[in-house]
Amino acid sequence: MIPVAIVGAAGYAGAELTRLILGHPSFELKAVTSAADEGKRVSDLYPALAGCDLVYTAHDAATVAKSAQVAFLAVPHTAAMAMAPVLLEAGLTVIDCSADFRLRDPDLFTAWYAEPHTAPELLAEAVYGLPELWRESLPGARLVACPGCYPTATLLAAAPAIRGGAVISSRIIVDAISGVSGAGRALSAATHFVNATESVSAYKVASHRHTPEIAQGLGDLGLTSPSVVFTPHLAPLDRGLLATVYLEADTALSAEDAHALYAGAYAGEPFITVCEPGVQPATAHVRGSNRAHIGVALDAPSHTLVVTCAIDNLVKGTSGQAIQCANLALGLDETAGLTAPVPVV
Amino acid sequence: MIPVAIVGAAGYAGAELTRLILGHPSFELKAVTSAADEGKRVSDLYPALAGCDLVYTAHDAATVAKSAQVAFLAVPHTAAMAMAPVLLEAGLTVIDCSADFRLRDPDLFTAWYAEPHTAPELLAEAVYGLPELWRESLPGARLVACPGCYPTATLLAAAPAIRGGAVISSRIIVDAISGVSGAGRALSAATHFVNATESVSAYKVASHRHTPEIAQGLGDLGLTSPSVVFTPHLAPLDRGLLATVYLEADTALSAEDAHALYAGAYAGEPFITVCEPGVQPATAHVRGSNRAHIGVALDAPSHTLVVTCAIDNLVKGTSGQAIQCANLALGLDETAGLTAPVPVV
Amino acid sequence: MIPVAIVGAAGYAGAELTRLILGHPSFELKAVTSAADEGKRVSDLYPALAGCDLVYTAHDAATVAKSAQVAFLAVPHTAAMAMAPVLLEAGLTVIDCSADFRLRDPDLFTAWYAEPHTAPELLAEAVYGLPELWRESLPGARLVACPGCYPTATLLAAAPAIRGGAVISSRIIVDAISGVSGAGRALSAATHFVNATESVSAYKVASHRHTPEIAQGLGDLGLTSPSVVFTPHLAPLDRGLLATVYLEADTALSAEDAHALYAGAYAGEPFITVCEPGVQPATAHVRGSNRAHIGVALDAPSHTLVVTCAIDNLVKGTSGQAIQCANLALGLDETAGLTAPVPVV
Amino acid sequence: MIPVAIVGAAGYAGAELTRLILGHPSFELKAVTSAADEGKRVSDLYPALAGCDLVYTAHDAATVAKSAQVAFLAVPHTAAMAMAPVLLEAGLTVIDCSADFRLRDPDLFTAWYAEPHTAPELLAEAVYGLPELWRESLPGARLVACPGCYPTATLLAAAPAIRGGAVISSRIIVDAISGVSGAGRALSAATHFVNATESVSAYKVASHRHTPEIAQGLGDLGLTSPSVVFTPHLAPLDRGLLATVYLEADTALSAEDAHALYAGAYAGEPFITVCEPGVQPATAHVRGSNRAHIGVALDAPSHTLVVTCAIDNLVKGTSGQAIQCANLALGLDETAGLTAPVPVV
Repeated sequence: MIPVAIVGAAGYAGAELTRLILGHPSFELKAVTSAADEGKRVSDLYPALAGCDLVYTAHDAATVAKSAQVAFLAVPHTAAMAMAPVLLEAGLTVIDCSADFRLRDPDLFTAWYAEPHTAPELLAEAVYGLPELWRESLPGARLVACPGCYPTATLLAAAPAIRGGAVISSRIIVDAISGVSGAGRALSAATHFVNATESVSAYKVASHRHTPEIAQGLGDLGLTSPSVVFTPHLAPLDRGLLATVYLEADTALSAEDAHALYAGAYAGEPFITVCEPGVQPATAHVRGSNRAHIGVALDAPSHTLVVTCAIDNLVKGTSGQAIQCANLALGLDETAGLTAPVPVV
Repeated sequence: MIPVAIVGAAGYAGAELTRLILGHPSFELKAVTSAADEGKRVSDLYPALAGCDLVYTAHDAATVAKSAQVAFLAVPHTAAMAMAPVLLEAGLTVIDCSADFRLRDPDLFTAWYAEPHTAPELLAEAVYGLPELWRESLPGARLVACPGCYPTATLLAAAPAIRGGAVISSRIIVDAISGVSGAGRALSAATHFVNATESVSAYKVASHRHTPEIAQGLGDLGLTSPSVVFTPHLAPLDRGLLATVYLEADTALSAEDAHALYAGAYAGEPFITVCEPGVQPATAHVRGSNRAHIGVALDAPSHTLVVTCAIDNLVKGTSGQAIQCANLALGLDETAGLTAPVPVV
Repeated sequence: MIPVAIVGAAGYAGAELTRLILGHPSFELKAVTSAADEGKRVSDLYPALAGCDLVYTAHDAATVAKSAQVAFLAVPHTAAMAMAPVLLEAGLTVIDCSADFRLRDPDLFTAWYAEPHTAPELLAEAVYGLPELWRESLPGARLVACPGCYPTATLLAAAPAIRGGAVISSRIIVDAISGVSGAGRALSAATHFVNATESVSAYKVASHRHTPEIAQGLGDLGLTSPSVVFTPHLAPLDRGLLATVYLEADTALSAEDAHALYAGAYAGEPFITVCEPGVQPATAHVRGSNRAHIGVALDAPSHTLVVTCAIDNLVKGTSGQAIQCANLALGLDETAGLTAPVPVV
Repeated sequence: MIPVAIVGAAGYAGAELTRLILGHPSFELKAVTSAADEGKRVSDLYPALAGCDLVYTAHDAATVAKSAQVAFLAVPHTAAMAMAPVLLEAGLTVIDCSADFRLRDPDLFTAWYAEPHTAPELLAEAVYGLPELWRESLPGARLVACPGCYPTATLLAAAPAIRGGAVISSRIIVDAISGVSGAGRALSAATHFVNATESVSAYKVASHRHTPEIAQGLGDLGLTSPSVVFTPHLAPLDRGLLATVYLEADTALSAEDAHALYAGAYAGEPFITVCEPGVQPATAHVRGSNRAHIGVALDAPSHTLVVTCAIDNLVKGTSGQAIQCANLALGLDETAGLTAPVPVV
């Protein structure tokens, strides 16, 4: 068993990492840290994890380094870049769920996050962890930057069309809907039940921090000078994320071509389902799961591909993908710990 | 008091019409008809209307014509075009909530609804009832075609930019989210609670019947050869509709210009709020109300206007707008019966 | 028009009072006060009240006294007992939605609220404002203590059986379910959307502060030495409260007798519907309304009456009942401002 | 691997059985049958089970008998009693989730289900499968009658107090709340999203078919002539069941005694958590899990124990308990296939 630690384990991403690691055949959870909940038992903070008697300890990189060979970071941005160097120096594999190592350009990070990057020397080494698109870069990786939830769904939705040469415009519109857990455990007026239930609204229009990450990924897929218009929405569900991606397509592309492009690109992928033509994915179908369900449709009169991708923001969008990346980085079966069937409704 | 009837009163639109007419200062509800629920009392089918002892009667145009001066039609498409000629002949004002008289071109109707149009001679007379955009056509109208819920929100969101000359592309992307009541009272797997809760999904991608209606309206606003990509989504709320409309804007347009365009266009409108810059509308804020709340944002790098419009699909999207149109057609105060403040949460 | 003020207008009860007063034919809203939101516009805090440009001002009894003849208090307990004497002294009618004047015994208040009562001299004058049960005490009242939401539903459910002499045990079990708005606008882990959705749980078991108020009311109805076991539950809805009340009944009482008792007791009540035998009330049917819907069933083998009462916790449970009491206190039509039909779904 | 079949696999209980068996270390799923969905693929009907290519076949006892050693029956009542004899005759172990073999008295079955019992000769052999209360009867059982969801939660909540001699009255009040999946996959007005969301209501008051099953179980626990008042409620969640059980307690019983009684009774139980004093269980904490969380409180003035029990109606309330019973019947580890940690929110 490989000893692992979760740094920032008391937030939703950390708690889902806890769940998945407790069920992982090759990982042994040795430490869970939390600044705010130090001293509490996991099962008291998250009664769904009844039976887990681990106690949250302080964030202390040195202690973490001693207890584990792998550290999952589920801390806010800037906290990860502060800890990663210490952990890497101590020889750990670091799987980071924060935004700190996603953007290769530290100036772009500063432009969007309004903070200097304090570990720019690690950016070249950091591997962007989206296995279905860039699997080959993961084996042996020491530092993995796990993608944001919106970029994960968007890039999975856009990749086959771009790589297949079917996209003729660099302007991509991404309209996405997220459940409320995407906003985290912190209390806010927007996530107060009475405000969130029975309501949908857009937020951070033209200003969400996942925008440059999406653009970087689209560029990596081969799109020249991507221009991303990204509108996230909040809907009254606790988990789940649906991205609807609009891609201007080559006029020669038929609906059948489009579907075949996606079915071919994702054939054999353990965590991706391309829905049959005419079928649309629903977030409920991937709840609790590391799967992405993808729907492909063509608006023929306008030659627009409308690709939808449903994921669980806390699993394929965060913790599950982190486990998948860790499996690949460490040479384990990519699906280890991620195969338990999920509740059907 | 003006005697009115609701034909097809037992569906959600009909029931909301019932509610609004019961509270209207100048209308007296004389008849409610229903094919499926004939003989039931309104308050038994809709206990929220406790105290309303009206009984649903059969659809019978002749009887309706005798009892009322105004008929609201809330029947499925094709049923309205069958009844309207009789009611008009009898001298009634007809306010139709179905799709039958929205498209001016009967062939377009047939192309999208797969049914012949049986009253094409009335299409020229039918007035498209969206008062904020085409108010002047309503006074004296004998036959009003009330817009669909998605076209209402979309056209309100697009109009000021188009009329203001700020839109430079005829390709418009409309990404919208509706509550489940939009699917009506009929039972279906998609509207079964267990399937609908905690889930979002797109539906009828590139094939929803409101598409040609949106295109016709955009053309009427002055857009040349509109090309509409329309993706509706279902979210777990009972009422509410949010349209997010993407418009390619003139590069000279600033965010301030854009907001000013909207604030100016809708100044004085009794049912429209243009949110302050940076504020986004939420469907919960218009629940039960005839109001539309509109948010205006500019994605500067791509010169894309992202305009959001929140309405209650059953009020401004159907029954409330029908009342508003009837008020105008009959020369009443446009806001009569629509001013009761709505619950705050 | 009678000038009125709302003290503590920025919470949910205050905002619903705002809504109802804005639609009231005889009240003119002159002042809304808020300690935390002073300076904000009502329509900014509650966009559902678009068009209401009133600005929250500081709590200042003297200013309120000058602007209004009637003051609605929607402040936390202890704040009301501090302000009421000043307002009464200035000649205002005070309608208090807090707990401060509900319990006639100041020691009981202190035992449950852990605070001394600072205006015990007013307790004898305060009228408990549940019109359907004690209407005769309201005309001319200067100080009305509006009941809590749970006591309202419970007492309406229990009264006909007790007054009718059908209850043979003083031990009453009250099992109730409330929507999340009952917990107010303050943020908390329990009302965080992610925690509250898709979950039900009991809270404050055997310790909720409405328990002594329910017991006092049952005694006033004629039950000797009432013993109340009260268990509130939280469910994922924003508004609505259902009380299920278990009453040991005389063995001679049949189901028909029981129903007749309730139908008779509430005949002619403008805000009460006794459901037909076999029909159960649902909170959705009274959403936004001042109505109570009551279901009467008899568990014959155990001679137990199971009476259910559905109300909107923010209307009949608070603000609507406050208006109803004010109407009666001031000699207006009891239903003034409370008759607008509510959305049907 | 033990070959198993699910008869009636396309309903919610059957689908959850499918999920759990797919993840079971010792079971191999050989057949899934469905009358209505014959010929469909599991993953088409339940996209959450993506990757499961099994196809529903017709209900045919002979075919099932050939393919499997264990049959899980998730068919409606009366269908199970028709199939069980054939399957038992063929040597299979039968785990029945229907109501057919729960009541030992066939006349009681007929009184509540209005159908004759066609296999009364099996009632003596049928084992009531609630392991935490009657574990010793399960090893070697050929026919297991899995309890209903409400009886499971109620009996777990009542057992320690009754067995501990702390209950002094045979009159038990059970007030319970269920999610909508408890009503199954069949469409109905009550389970239409628009009707079910934002609403709570009681149903089948004093007439629910689980009442005699609860009474039989209370009697088996040692309560003399139990009198059960049972009120189920529907709340807007898809999964989850909370039972609040009221037990008149010996006046000598303190709150500490009560908690100790429960903690002691369930010490070491793999699927039961007795919450700390003052903590209440929530259905969200057992979503997808086979666990029961129990809260113990004493209303001291009335000497009433208020015990709450939260389960997932589709897991501990049906399919998970069926697996647990099958494990015990077959001599496997009781927890096999039931230990995967569940999503934390």
